[in-house]
Amino acid sequence: MKSLFERDMSVINVGLQSFADNVAAAGGTVTNLAWVPPAGADAALGWTLAGLVGDPRIEAANRIAYDRYLAAQPRLIDLILAREAMPGLSGDNRRILHSGPPIAWADMCGPQQGAIAGAIVYEGWADTIPAAEAMAAAGEVTLEPCHHHGAVGPMAGIISPSMPVWVVENAEAGNRAFCNLNEGLGKVLRFGANSPEVLDRLTWLGTEFFGVMQAAVRGLEDKNLKPMMAQALHMGDELHNRNAAASALLFKRLVLSLGKLDLDSDAVNRALTFIAGNDHFFLNISMAASKSMSDAAHGVPGSSMVTVMARNGVNFGIRLSGTGEQWFQAPANPVDGLYFPGYSVADAAADLGDSAITETNGLGGFAMAASPAIVQFVGGTPADATANSRRMLTITLGANPAFTLPPLNFGGTPAGVDARLVVDSGVLPIINTGIAHRKAGVGQIGAGITTAPMECFNDAIAALAVSLDAIPMPEGATT
Amino acid sequence: MKSLFERDMSVINVGLQSFADNVAAAGGTVTNLAWVPPAGADAALGWTLAGLVGDPRIEAANRIAYDRYLAAQPRLIDLILAREAMPGLSGDNRRILHSGPPIAWADMCGPQQGAIAGAIVYEGWADTIPAAEAMAAAGEVTLEPCHHHGAVGPMAGIISPSMPVWVVENAEAGNRAFCNLNEGLGKVLRFGANSPEVLDRLTWLGTEFFGVMQAAVRGLEDKNLKPMMAQALHMGDELHNRNAAASALLFKRLVLSLGKLDLDSDAVNRALTFIAGNDHFFLNISMAASKSMSDAAHGVPGSSMVTVMARNGVNFGIRLSGTGEQWFQAPANPVDGLYFPGYSVADAAADLGDSAITETNGLGGFAMAASPAIVQFVGGTPADATANSRRMLTITLGANPAFTLPPLNFGGTPAGVDARLVVDSGVLPIINTGIAHRKAGVGQIGAGITTAPMECFNDAIAALAVSLDAIPMPEGATT
Repeated sequence: MKSLFERDMSVINVGLQSFADNVAAAGGTVTNLAWVPPAGADAALGWTLAGLVGDPRIEAANRIAYDRYLAAQPRLIDLILAREAMPGLSGDNRRILHSGPPIAWADMCGPQQGAIAGAIVYEGWADTIPAAEAMAAAGEVTLEPCHHHGAVGPMAGIISPSMPVWVVENAEAGNRAFCNLNEGLGKVLRFGANSPEVLDRLTWLGTEFFGVMQAAVRGLEDKNLKPMMAQALHMGDELHNRNAAASALLFKRLVLSLGKLDLDSDAVNRALTFIAGNDHFFLNISMAASKSMSDAAHGVPGSSMVTVMARNGVNFGIRLSGTGEQWFQAPANPVDGLYFPGYSVADAAADLGDSAITETNGLGGFAMAASPAIVQFVGGTPADATANSRRMLTITLGANPAFTLPPLNFGGTPAGVDARLVVDSGVLPIINTGIAHRKAGVGQIGAGITTAPMECFNDAIAALAVSLDAIPMPEGATT
Repeated sequence: MKSLFERDMSVINVGLQSFADNVAAAGGTVTNLAWVPPAGADAALGWTLAGLVGDPRIEAANRIAYDRYLAAQPRLIDLILAREAMPGLSGDNRRILHSGPPIAWADMCGPQQGAIAGAIVYEGWADTIPAAEAMAAAGEVTLEPCHHHGAVGPMAGIISPSMPVWVVENAEAGNRAFCNLNEGLGKVLRFGANSPEVLDRLTWLGTEFFGVMQAAVRGLEDKNLKPMMAQALHMGDELHNRNAAASALLFKRLVLSLGKLDLDSDAVNRALTFIAGNDHFFLNISMAASKSMSDAAHGVPGSSMVTVMARNGVNFGIRLSGTGEQWFQAPANPVDGLYFPGYSVADAAADLGDSAITETNGLGGFAMAASPAIVQFVGGTPADATANSRRMLTITLGANPAFTLPPLNFGGTPAGVDARLVVDSGVLPIINTGIAHRKAGVGQIGAGITTAPMECFNDAIAALAVSLDAIPMPEGATT
């Protein structure tokens, strides 16, 4: 014992960093292993988790869910008005959809309130923004998550009945998913802006642009999205915060389709100019495709696969395939990112939008290795981007062979987060995201990286454990 | 000494692999360091090289040449007929340009002969391919390198007076470069095919397509190529064997330009359909841009910077900035690559085409790090691609900050080969290239990686040494 302390100490510390700091302060050589106990050292949760590991009902359910996800074949089949796409928005329903889990008007963040007020005026339900706000506050408009209607929307995620939505159909299972149109950057509704220029653009998107694009999409020779998305991953996109390649590839298809139609050439040129000027145009289609692929895996009793990750600017919510319509929510994490000049984290809204459906689908932060140049937008280095993709493999059910990442030597992108693995490892799903100003109308002020909060996954596996009571154990199986 | 041989041997062998093999065969542990003496152990050449290292005339000349290269601003300003672009092809001149260094008809490889015969028929100088071949063999058509006329052409590299050529102007110095149109894949003139379908396509490219594209190019709002090429490097292109992103980005610009014109819509649609179906469409523009940038550095007395690398299917030729119009030639190396099903290296023509002007410009093999997916086309792994770019930094005058490579943490692409460094290090410039069948008309049979032959660089520095006699040493300078 005495000789131990007479020698130079060389220490490996497992866990708490402060222990390592003390050794270092005393002049010792210390390597800190960043380890945390499973389930955040919560004993009760740890026992719950232990009961779920290797459960044959979960393993079987996850195989079914993951296979359905892998088999999904998203196709861009239409652009129609939201009221035609979703029964909940049809008829005289004054209903507006928003991003993330359910939230009351009074609790919403600035950008989401601003966007809803803008949508109310856009729909003609109120004449002014203050009147629209009063209407929303009085409960005269029903506010529900996009995800409750098979839809997704980036940032504020607002979809109202008269807005066009992309229709992506999973040809394998027939399920459909919807997403609104990308309005470009700057002052746009999804960041809470609702000035006349914003509403004028929405009106143009919902009329002239809608007419041109509906015809173009219906005439597309190749409606398959999966190969195009795979190609974009080989062209530097991760299909969440970087969509330059996919937007350019879609542009080619749309131009060829329009070439076969006899539409007003000025209207066509305005539409194409709008698309060509917006490298994020494909984002909303990537989201609808991701929703259709994740939805294919949803609803398998016993499955611990995450099928929704979404944020409303206050809370982050997830859903598991095996726990139906339940949301598991926690306060959204801040976003660590690069801010546009003049802005800082103090100006930022909390993590916002349904666009994390791309990460749910193995894209975005999960596919960052494919997109080294993304770090110029969200921060970090290309090596970080590759490391992020590799780390996500520790919490996913597998790697999607349809979406290969060149820097991982063409390994598939990590896909299908297993909530058990998140709780066990403490590794959180990583998300590339835009950053909205916390005040309505200012717009995007940066982009960066954030994570899903652990509490969502803790709650989810607790609920999954309860749900297992209703599922019979396979004959001869033991846990 | 005795004790040395009694111990287990652990050997580092420098140089000849066979020495290491002997140690290994005898059971020893050996690490072989792949080293070769400078100048290939040729003592005379070594002394020549030693005389050039650090010569202030060369250093000053290289700074001028390299700065001119870096300052070049290639702009796509026009598409015109070759006879209008190049005085040597105007009037009644029966002159046809080919790729690589000068070569007589009788010595040419099959694809180049086939392409020249096709061009003669295309020009109407002969009615049949056999008649065209007889005409060429009889010397009735002048055959000269593209590079002698400020032009470049991929593979066979054939440019005849009635073919349209892209015009790229370096806005900084005013010099212009030309390249023909990309015909797509399959049976095409540049691989030596000359059947009626090939000539019909050339005729369409030279008439209807020409009319549409000339108008589109002249109306381009943004004619700058350098930022677009830089963007494509962030989208998985290396701008030699992979041009998918740049082709898509150019397509967007062309569509927007055409939208402002009132052209026949069927002709426009045919032109756009042709471009949209050819991910290599941008290659010829990348080549013209590269030629304009490399030419900017050409003609600085004393400079050891390589400004041309080109192959005619028999010989590989280079030019240095400081040695004017001289070619330094050697037999072209074989191409190590991936062959299309049914073909092997036995079917391959030797390395062919002016497209190595992209490597001369820091693109292609030099920029492979930007293009991990290229290895699916040329072989190897993404790690090889990155290693190739890093290795080229050992033989270049610098890294071009305008062309950054994300996997090198946004370091510039290695650019401006210094012939002295090649001879000193034994590291050869690497080139990504297509592989032509050695018989005319079969077409492309693969793609791969090759290198420039060392003899070119040996001869070049010997000539550079002679040229220095005419250049006064700066006052006070010593070698």
